[in-house]
Amino acid sequence: MDKIVECIPNFSEGKDKKVIDAIFDAAKSVKSVKVMDLEFNASHNRCLFTIIGEPGEVLASVYESIKIATKLIDMEKHKGEHPRIGATDVVPFVPVSGVSMEECVELAKKLGKIVGEELKIPVFLYEEAASRPENRNLADVRKGEYEGLKVKMNKPDFGPSKMHSTAGAVVIGARKYLVAFNVNLDTKDIKIGKDIASKIREKNGGLPGVKALGFDVDGFAQVSMNLVDSEKTNFDEVFRAVTLEAEKLGVKVKSSEIYGMIPLESLVRAVKTTFKAETFKSDQVLEKKLYE
Amino acid sequence: MDKIVECIPNFSEGKDKKVIDAIFDAAKSVKSVKVMDLEFNASHNRCLFTIIGEPGEVLASVYESIKIATKLIDMEKHKGEHPRIGATDVVPFVPVSGVSMEECVELAKKLGKIVGEELKIPVFLYEEAASRPENRNLADVRKGEYEGLKVKMNKPDFGPSKMHSTAGAVVIGARKYLVAFNVNLDTKDIKIGKDIASKIREKNGGLPGVKALGFDVDGFAQVSMNLVDSEKTNFDEVFRAVTLEAEKLGVKVKSSEIYGMIPLESLVRAVKTTFKAETFKSDQVLEKKLYE
Repeated sequence: MDKIVECIPNFSEGKDKKVIDAIFDAAKSVKSVKVMDLEFNASHNRCLFTIIGEPGEVLASVYESIKIATKLIDMEKHKGEHPRIGATDVVPFVPVSGVSMEECVELAKKLGKIVGEELKIPVFLYEEAASRPENRNLADVRKGEYEGLKVKMNKPDFGPSKMHSTAGAVVIGARKYLVAFNVNLDTKDIKIGKDIASKIREKNGGLPGVKALGFDVDGFAQVSMNLVDSEKTNFDEVFRAVTLEAEKLGVKVKSSEIYGMIPLESLVRAVKTTFKAETFKSDQVLEKKLYE
Repeated sequence: MDKIVECIPNFSEGKDKKVIDAIFDAAKSVKSVKVMDLEFNASHNRCLFTIIGEPGEVLASVYESIKIATKLIDMEKHKGEHPRIGATDVVPFVPVSGVSMEECVELAKKLGKIVGEELKIPVFLYEEAASRPENRNLADVRKGEYEGLKVKMNKPDFGPSKMHSTAGAVVIGARKYLVAFNVNLDTKDIKIGKDIASKIREKNGGLPGVKALGFDVDGFAQVSMNLVDSEKTNFDEVFRAVTLEAEKLGVKVKSSEIYGMIPLESLVRAVKTTFKAETFKSDQVLEKKLYE
């Protein structure tokens, strides 16, 4: 399998297990993809899961789940803490391996077109797939939520210019893979964690693609990070930067944590940089070869 | 796929492409495994390839290739530079993922039993599968080669106590995965590479499972290593050790190379150690999840 994308569709149902399972099972009806990590939350009244596989297959799988969600979820009756505009609320495509961001943008547009035309749902493209700068940020697209968009809605990228009577609207797009990475410091002074987080986060002029916060974890300072662009700043670079900042303050790094999933490419890049192994490629990883 | 083993059968044919292909194709007739990296050498008059997959499937695949090799290769007519005792010469099983060395030893014995009983070929177990200490080392088992063993042969572990009239005998066993790792030094003084190799190799009291030589590569010193037990000494540890020794001599590391294939587990261990990410597991690698 040369090209691998990930898709993480979010649906506005977090209570009714029958509905959740029906949506999850619909995605699984495409046998060639892996559908996993189903999460649902009753107070958010929302569920999400992960589909990975070849681009066309992932598209087919997520479309099956959107069809069922459109049938089974009635936004007129939906209440939940989490912002949402539709039965299928947001659908990001993420390049994992052998796939460019452009290809994921094309996938988002392809899905948007059929959801708009076949299911008659207004589709807004966001992040890397956005057709307008004001639609890049998901929070901006969702402003006003389902109820607000019923009253006033900008022209969507695909589909009708008014909300679907029960399914509302949907945001579809493409974004980079997000790696959650934490560094635990050997100090009980939580402020040190917060200070280092503040220094290394992109927003304050730190490392590109790094979002960082300082936390108290079991009485010790933790720098908790989301790496939203591992090609620009990979976890190994972040580790070195945090270690350096900590050393300046006389503090040692206790441990680090990769939280959740990480693409193989990110490990390979860490090995290349850390051990100056410039020629190393993910194709040299035995398990990858096995499934080509 | 939870359990993955690798098998690298070596056959005594390196010239006749029809025979080589027939053996290779026989292994491929078991569809659930990956058969790859066919290499053959006319002056050695020998070929080898790699089979990876689930243990039982790999065993079935290699057995198919041994059957064909037994039919097509006549050791009475075989000449070649490389030491050999049979048509199928040596068959190591290597644990890759989710498989213990004990399971590979069992696989070796299972294959040995059917090769001995069904194909009437004497089978010697070697390395981790050896039943006698004097058979651990492959070179010792092959002493005297095909011609010598026809005259005088110790009792095999399976099969008849005399050579098969055309296929000779075979060595089957289990060993650890071997990682080829080189470190290139920023010096033209080749002796420094040789000195560092000498210091870090296991034989001279250095790192366990490390074989090392110093070479001249494009006019610069290289420490060229085989890591025969990555669980004891992984490539990241070797890199740090060579860097330290080089620094003592005022020399910098230019680059490193992982040569050929490496198991994912080895990358994961390097990440765990280097970034103090003790909780990190190969199950967190997205591509691995995809194929479970």
